[in-house]
Amino acid sequence: MSGWRAPNPAFEQVVREAFAAQAAMALIGASLVRVEPGVVEIELPVDDRIMTNVPGIVHGGVVGMIADSAIGLSALTLAPVGQFGVTAEYKINMLSPAFGDKLIARGGVVKPGKQISVGRADVHALRDGGEKLVATLLGTLAAI
Amino acid sequence: MSGWRAPNPAFEQVVREAFAAQAAMALIGASLVRVEPGVVEIELPVDDRIMTNVPGIVHGGVVGMIADSAIGLSALTLAPVGQFGVTAEYKINMLSPAFGDKLIARGGVVKPGKQISVGRADVHALRDGGEKLVATLLGTLAAI
Amino acid sequence: MSGWRAPNPAFEQVVREAFAAQAAMALIGASLVRVEPGVVEIELPVDDRIMTNVPGIVHGGVVGMIADSAIGLSALTLAPVGQFGVTAEYKINMLSPAFGDKLIARGGVVKPGKQISVGRADVHALRDGGEKLVATLLGTLAAI
Amino acid sequence: MSGWRAPNPAFEQVVREAFAAQAAMALIGASLVRVEPGVVEIELPVDDRIMTNVPGIVHGGVVGMIADSAIGLSALTLAPVGQFGVTAEYKINMLSPAFGDKLIARGGVVKPGKQISVGRADVHALRDGGEKLVATLLGTLAAI
Repeated sequence: MSGWRAPNPAFEQVVREAFAAQAAMALIGASLVRVEPGVVEIELPVDDRIMTNVPGIVHGGVVGMIADSAIGLSALTLAPVGQFGVTAEYKINMLSPAFGDKLIARGGVVKPGKQISVGRADVHALRDGGEKLVATLLGTLAAI
Repeated sequence: MSGWRAPNPAFEQVVREAFAAQAAMALIGASLVRVEPGVVEIELPVDDRIMTNVPGIVHGGVVGMIADSAIGLSALTLAPVGQFGVTAEYKINMLSPAFGDKLIARGGVVKPGKQISVGRADVHALRDGGEKLVATLLGTLAAI
Repeated sequence: MSGWRAPNPAFEQVVREAFAAQAAMALIGASLVRVEPGVVEIELPVDDRIMTNVPGIVHGGVVGMIADSAIGLSALTLAPVGQFGVTAEYKINMLSPAFGDKLIARGGVVKPGKQISVGRADVHALRDGGEKLVATLLGTLAAI
Repeated sequence: MSGWRAPNPAFEQVVREAFAAQAAMALIGASLVRVEPGVVEIELPVDDRIMTNVPGIVHGGVVGMIADSAIGLSALTLAPVGQFGVTAEYKINMLSPAFGDKLIARGGVVKPGKQISVGRADVHALRDGGEKLVATLLGTLAAI
């Protein structure tokens, strides 16, 4: 999920502006912590507002939100100037309860394409100095 | 996605309490508008806080959140007394941009099971008096 | 999953020729039993050659094969003259063991599109005069 | 997707017998080439019988078959004595046309579990001395 070359030299700015324009990311408190060709990381501090009904566990839909954004933005790092993409579909397996101090979604491009790209994101929970894989997402992006 | 019988006579109360305990649903402004055996509807008024970076369009991850909750709670309507479930995985196809006044996620049980249930949710956008299918989700719930 | 209009008046012939050209369908013994705008049905007699390691149960991958072909061909019924498609991705939930005399995969278009279409297929097992839903597939087709 | 410990010392024999009992694998000509704790590889020589309607390209459903079997058997390597599993669901992205001399599906366990395990399989096509990633599958196995 790395080793890609970005055709747009301003890719980082494009991705940071796209992230900043996603109001939903601000609502849940997510921030963009890494932007490289084909790879994006989104960090989410865990707080009471994003819980599911099991105390301490982040809502699976919120886990999906940051993972979905991570693959969309990782595809955007490889897009030609002026081209954007939308999520056509994604699928996510919850591997462990999303419990911790913060979550990190690491999204990467599996296969770039002119019309369709495929990306994968792993979501880790950080707690007690360690990290645990809590979810993995596989999704398809369509160029528009 | 209907015609089921709920083994727990208090199923509606159980589901309403579970929804009320999901802080993430309150954060995005979602409400529970229908609870029947095997079927749950969640409504989400569209406002600026839940947008993706395309103006007017709800973030795909937020669309996934209400659809995921809808299938989880629809499975919960059919659970025996004291049994809960978690989302093991889900997959969602975005069919049209989620643009409108509000979204409705209609979740239903496709196949109930002791250990594993399968549910489907369609998300419609309401606008100008009409409604449009914007996403469809298929997911797997595991009993705990 | 119906009510669509086929832009190509020769859609049935196009679909029947595409099916006939899929050697893998002949290998497992599948046949095309219904072709309408946006809807295709594929039938598969159950025999010992297509079993998984549980006696009497058809291999889940074979179930996926007929369901995948059904959505691909249902999208093809709605394609303009000369346009073909490929499966970009699919996901399938196994709902009950695929046990019976024959299987029928009913594929339909959920959302047609110029670049991307979405289809769904339900697979039923026929036995003892009744039929049972054994799997449901949701997939994405890309025009080429 | 490695580093697991098999609780059943006879895991390889169990997996080889399960594979040998899958008639559908014999039908398409697949063979089991690697069995280690948490990892299984299945090889499929490409011949005319397994094609889709595009000449030279293996049917996406057949690609799914070997990838599905690979994750199911990789989960089986980690199962306690006497426990078997079934595929609850899988999702597969086709990344490139499956064109080559043979295909190899490498399945591995992402997360083992008592009731539910998650596996991933990558399918590579071998041609001209090189190999190319043609599909990636993510799936859920349920213990029975």
